[in-house]
Amino acid sequence: MALEFDLIENFFKPLSLGLSEDEVGIGDDGAVMSAPEGHQLVVVTDTLVAGVHFPVATSAYDIAWKALAVNLSDLAAMGATPAFFSLALTLPENDTDWLKGFSKGLKDLSHRFKIPLIGGDTTKGPLTITVTANGWVPFREAILRSGAKVGDWVCVTNTVGDGALGLKVALDNLPESMFISDLSQEEKKFALNALNRPMPQLAISQDLLGRVNSAIDISDGLLADLGHILQQSSAKSYGTHGASQKTMLGADIELTELPLSSGVTKYLELTDDWSLPLAGGDDYQLCLTLDEARFSGLKALLAKQQVCLTKVGKINDQGLVSCFERGVLRLGDADLQSGYSHF
Amino acid sequence: MALEFDLIENFFKPLSLGLSEDEVGIGDDGAVMSAPEGHQLVVVTDTLVAGVHFPVATSAYDIAWKALAVNLSDLAAMGATPAFFSLALTLPENDTDWLKGFSKGLKDLSHRFKIPLIGGDTTKGPLTITVTANGWVPFREAILRSGAKVGDWVCVTNTVGDGALGLKVALDNLPESMFISDLSQEEKKFALNALNRPMPQLAISQDLLGRVNSAIDISDGLLADLGHILQQSSAKSYGTHGASQKTMLGADIELTELPLSSGVTKYLELTDDWSLPLAGGDDYQLCLTLDEARFSGLKALLAKQQVCLTKVGKINDQGLVSCFERGVLRLGDADLQSGYSHF
Repeated sequence: MALEFDLIENFFKPLSLGLSEDEVGIGDDGAVMSAPEGHQLVVVTDTLVAGVHFPVATSAYDIAWKALAVNLSDLAAMGATPAFFSLALTLPENDTDWLKGFSKGLKDLSHRFKIPLIGGDTTKGPLTITVTANGWVPFREAILRSGAKVGDWVCVTNTVGDGALGLKVALDNLPESMFISDLSQEEKKFALNALNRPMPQLAISQDLLGRVNSAIDISDGLLADLGHILQQSSAKSYGTHGASQKTMLGADIELTELPLSSGVTKYLELTDDWSLPLAGGDDYQLCLTLDEARFSGLKALLAKQQVCLTKVGKINDQGLVSCFERGVLRLGDADLQSGYSHF
Repeated sequence: MALEFDLIENFFKPLSLGLSEDEVGIGDDGAVMSAPEGHQLVVVTDTLVAGVHFPVATSAYDIAWKALAVNLSDLAAMGATPAFFSLALTLPENDTDWLKGFSKGLKDLSHRFKIPLIGGDTTKGPLTITVTANGWVPFREAILRSGAKVGDWVCVTNTVGDGALGLKVALDNLPESMFISDLSQEEKKFALNALNRPMPQLAISQDLLGRVNSAIDISDGLLADLGHILQQSSAKSYGTHGASQKTMLGADIELTELPLSSGVTKYLELTDDWSLPLAGGDDYQLCLTLDEARFSGLKALLAKQQVCLTKVGKINDQGLVSCFERGVLRLGDADLQSGYSHF
């Protein structure tokens, strides 16, 4: 589809703000961006497909917000400062109202973090949105999944399970033991907001540099994403110490320590379904591991940004993840997802 | 879709080669890449949708080749040295054979230019491929669409119209005045190859730096893409001289000078359909403008890379594109596309 020049001018060019005189944004074969000295480029890409990553009824505004947010969330997990993004938008039809809402959502989130849209592509086809976001990180300081060490505390930011609860509210498929009326209006709103307008943890990404050993954003679910940290960090140990000393990292998680919103707490009281906060995904909070000695300092630092840091477990060298409830084993070798969709 | 870990390991990780020790490729939240000093980053994005940008019957190998090639072509048009790329792949099903062919096509082209795949996303949905390719260009030396000047010669590399002829051969919809048998096996093969395996003009992108005033790759068709140069360069004049001195650039094109393959020449003899080489698109040759005095030097330089440079016209200040046939006006104010799909 050749999008009308007007549409680009009206909807997307206004998002291409804040470039320096030496830089080139929308309108050429590609964008030209300057690199700050002493930094490395961080590149992340995530695709959202209608009906797969968001309910078909989701508003254009929320789709745009989420498409950008999930990428910025990856930048936050690496400790990067967001810099700019590009957009590949495949649309079934040239719908001005839809584009208005979409560009508004993109604008509101991108302006919050002062990052320009630098280019992209619009094509005709089933609704699919791919954002590639770029950030900068001081040379060699990027926070990786592979840095976790035995004894590290496992922490998460804010609360987990809200996005997954929001999806159940949006699709109206709460389990039989629970009615939608069990949740207050505020709890429903909080959960839907977590689903549709996740806030990437960029306000704290700089605070993490040099203070945490590993981090990941929780998109696939806490256990799956923690599993990625364990796997990558085990592989790293392997590389450093040779085959004979390979350490298979695991973790002990205390379920009662999981930071939960009142809606998710209510959900668990009524259903006892721990898969929601453990495997629900769509949280876009950060899971990170750090030396015990660093915890209280970092917690205080993040509190200044209104972000709560909670210890939920500890890294071990047993190669398994175990979930305890008040010290009693509740779930054994957790069902860590073996598949990666994001590579 | 959670692509099996094996698939990433088997098909995509082998494409993540050539990173330095300080860099991070596939397997974390994002990639971390180092920037060469004194350079700017060039970012391009193009999406291919099945049935829109390539016939549904196209092989997985050719789809991958083209998805990467059209992006590298944009880098070439900006004078950039290709550095790395990311891939967002939406697939209807997890088909190992298809992925084998796809990753082979991606590998063959990316290895030719020594650029690693640094990450991406795989999702379930209708077949859509978005590649974001990155390159480096010396500070402030990127070749833009906006640099054309009155009096510049308009040139193209190699031949035009072959991709469009290839599409007619592939879809078996040559016009009534022509039979598929009018083309030799070799001519058909050449056209299909231009369609399915375009070769980005990266071998010459360095030679263009400092020698041409503007460039674009021919993806929408020669007239449409030249139109983008004229529009951007007119806008630039506007910015420099103020509203009262705005120069609307146009161009005179001599049709008999267009460099054509024997297949396209035959097509024109039988059909007189000039829209094929002028508006067919999918050429991925470069259209560039330069000072007359630079022409023979650049032509000799490009010949060393087996790339032919041909003058096809001249930039004027009339704001219109006119196509002449042996000096006689054949097409007046050409039907320049007003829509942009690539911004």
